[in-house]
Amino acid sequence: MLEELKERVCEGNVALAEHGLVIFTWGNLSEIDFEKKIVAIKPSGVSFEELETEDIVLVDLEGKVVEGDKRPSSDTPTHLEIYRNFPKIKSVVHTHSTHATTFAQALKGIECFGTTHADHFFGKVPVTRKLSEEEIVNDYEANTGKVIVETVEEKKIDPLQVPACLVANHGPFVFGETAEKTVENAVVLEQVARMNIETLKVNPETKAIDQALLDKHFLRKHGKNAYYGQG
Amino acid sequence: MLEELKERVCEGNVALAEHGLVIFTWGNLSEIDFEKKIVAIKPSGVSFEELETEDIVLVDLEGKVVEGDKRPSSDTPTHLEIYRNFPKIKSVVHTHSTHATTFAQALKGIECFGTTHADHFFGKVPVTRKLSEEEIVNDYEANTGKVIVETVEEKKIDPLQVPACLVANHGPFVFGETAEKTVENAVVLEQVARMNIETLKVNPETKAIDQALLDKHFLRKHGKNAYYGQG
Amino acid sequence: MLEELKERVCEGNVALAEHGLVIFTWGNLSEIDFEKKIVAIKPSGVSFEELETEDIVLVDLEGKVVEGDKRPSSDTPTHLEIYRNFPKIKSVVHTHSTHATTFAQALKGIECFGTTHADHFFGKVPVTRKLSEEEIVNDYEANTGKVIVETVEEKKIDPLQVPACLVANHGPFVFGETAEKTVENAVVLEQVARMNIETLKVNPETKAIDQALLDKHFLRKHGKNAYYGQG
Amino acid sequence: MLEELKERVCEGNVALAEHGLVIFTWGNLSEIDFEKKIVAIKPSGVSFEELETEDIVLVDLEGKVVEGDKRPSSDTPTHLEIYRNFPKIKSVVHTHSTHATTFAQALKGIECFGTTHADHFFGKVPVTRKLSEEEIVNDYEANTGKVIVETVEEKKIDPLQVPACLVANHGPFVFGETAEKTVENAVVLEQVARMNIETLKVNPETKAIDQALLDKHFLRKHGKNAYYGQG
Repeated sequence: MLEELKERVCEGNVALAEHGLVIFTWGNLSEIDFEKKIVAIKPSGVSFEELETEDIVLVDLEGKVVEGDKRPSSDTPTHLEIYRNFPKIKSVVHTHSTHATTFAQALKGIECFGTTHADHFFGKVPVTRKLSEEEIVNDYEANTGKVIVETVEEKKIDPLQVPACLVANHGPFVFGETAEKTVENAVVLEQVARMNIETLKVNPETKAIDQALLDKHFLRKHGKNAYYGQG
Repeated sequence: MLEELKERVCEGNVALAEHGLVIFTWGNLSEIDFEKKIVAIKPSGVSFEELETEDIVLVDLEGKVVEGDKRPSSDTPTHLEIYRNFPKIKSVVHTHSTHATTFAQALKGIECFGTTHADHFFGKVPVTRKLSEEEIVNDYEANTGKVIVETVEEKKIDPLQVPACLVANHGPFVFGETAEKTVENAVVLEQVARMNIETLKVNPETKAIDQALLDKHFLRKHGKNAYYGQG
Repeated sequence: MLEELKERVCEGNVALAEHGLVIFTWGNLSEIDFEKKIVAIKPSGVSFEELETEDIVLVDLEGKVVEGDKRPSSDTPTHLEIYRNFPKIKSVVHTHSTHATTFAQALKGIECFGTTHADHFFGKVPVTRKLSEEEIVNDYEANTGKVIVETVEEKKIDPLQVPACLVANHGPFVFGETAEKTVENAVVLEQVARMNIETLKVNPETKAIDQALLDKHFLRKHGKNAYYGQG
Repeated sequence: MLEELKERVCEGNVALAEHGLVIFTWGNLSEIDFEKKIVAIKPSGVSFEELETEDIVLVDLEGKVVEGDKRPSSDTPTHLEIYRNFPKIKSVVHTHSTHATTFAQALKGIECFGTTHADHFFGKVPVTRKLSEEEIVNDYEANTGKVIVETVEEKKIDPLQVPACLVANHGPFVFGETAEKTVENAVVLEQVARMNIETLKVNPETKAIDQALLDKHFLRKHGKNAYYGQG
């Protein structure tokens, strides 16, 4: 069932490797079919090179496998927590991409220092608080999802306008309206993180860009008055 | 019409991606036919991989499309502002290349620290002031061009001798006498920016090179007494 | 004899080059057949591009060549010292990979700053003390092995749980249960070292992650209660 | 004449590009035939991709072209100055490779921080003083060679034991006994420079390695008691 969904999810996972965001079996992409309330996700511990459409696992929103021979990604409860709380999100990507993970390890969000960031993320990309020992020991992966939801809600972020959240000491989770768009967001996040580090080297006093410039760049590409692209 | 111009512009845009200066749909290259007063430019939001000669849009110097089915780059008014003010410039490139964009984000120009820079840029590459809220809200892309023109003129720069300007919080715009040469200038700018950052790590006290060395290297490659190359 | 062992060792050495961990003739991989007490290792000074299975040298645990036309790696005594002292280790890799070597040169171990590290290394990757002049002049390569053994034992490390040790002023030696797994550990070590350097740039106050998170990530992938992968 | 020499020089120049040390027309490699006192060198301003054996120019030690249709590299007088003063040197490479050039721009030599350096360079790689205005204006390229010779001689360096010198504000010149070996030295120099910068980030107090370790590593690969490789 849901063959096209599984194909898109397989292609999206392979694209993560092609863009250099993941190596070995690190990272995973899922997409949800909201009508059927079913999520297609990468199987656990399978390398991106060997991944095929029939390996993709279908689970319901409680995590029960409804199709597939393999175990779903160990991060599945994190993805489900995100889908249950943000109905706008259709796809979730998790990577350990070098520079975005660096910010997660440093417990710092990624400030908007330029229009590359503003074209894709409508403001600072947040980092979660650290999980408590209790949250780590019991239901770790679900609690990882809960702390993402908590962070996005506390900061009153629209998760399609700032489609990423860094999990403290861990790495980025990225959101989107399609698997393809979510992969793109993950690529941009990595590039923005990389340039942010370099920018602070050139000028440690660099501040976030003005709101007017942030509005201009984000809204010329997104929303009802967008005029970028072929319309 | 102007098929050769459109071919060069298509090839130049593709070359930006091949040199690693652009990903997805970021960046654009144009070239002007000064006799006909027509500019050939990349269409908006089309990926470099899919770009073909017939996608290239022809516009006049007021931005009216004179040939092509697609919308021109949203940065077209910036390119036109540059062409209208600097008749020597035949081609303009805009990228978000990593290290040049870093300097734009840090609001710093790129000092000439060595002969790699001096071989291509006859002195410091300038950065513009930030645009005002008014300039951002109304006619943003044209105002981006105007602040480039203002910066080049204020600093009394010959835009073919220092063929690039960094737009604050945004990224580099690069100039040249041909599309091919302008792509080369964009590659060199990125490399010079990268080495500049590394140089300041090794020696934070590094100063710009002496004028005599700058003169020697720039003028052995450019101008009437040049003796580099096959003449 | 031991054709399969030699094939795996040849493939493992070639994989080091494919992963970008070694260039020219730098670095080497070996694997031991514990029953026969024979080690298969790369020949000295042969480039990874030209390496073939029949070039792999077989030596006994005292370093005597038991098969092969070529001299074994000049680092052979280091490998043997490790095998003699840690019977759990089945394969050893030595590289000069950029960022792991950087830590060795800086005389610093690699702290665990995130779950990428915790997934593969159960705590800080140690660095040895510097060798004394006496240890350098006589039996240098064996003494390199001895200082690795000393470091692992002093810190009460299980060398399969923290499967790497940095030799001061030199570079990483990496361990594993198979040649393939040891190559993977060497790739991860390089990536972890790279992200560690970047993390300290973003936040110089970064501390090692909490023990609970380290336990969670290492033990969900390793040991009897592991639940990562396809089981 | 000297077809084999020209072939080696062509291949060596192409190898510089393949190793990522040069782009466009930056950099050049030459080799000398000491018996005939003739130097084969890259032509000026020809890209590495298009270079063919018949493009290689033969010049005598005074710089007079003895064969070839093209102008020799504008850096030819620098190469000749080196050959005239150091009869041991059979090949010279000049690049603008990123990290080695960084040190030249920062006016800093490259300290020996580890065995990667010690395996190829028997101590610190020196940087020249800056050229005077007089030296820049008149006979710039020959004076660049003279300041290299001056630096090597002042520091009492054997130019085959420390086969490189950084020209202040410019970039590296690298030496060797064959074109192939000189290319390798240029690759190693770039890698050593890169790791040196990273090492100072991890530990700004890093010191050069002990003399005993420098001796051990350099002399196990070079000289009459070398025991690295296949002998």
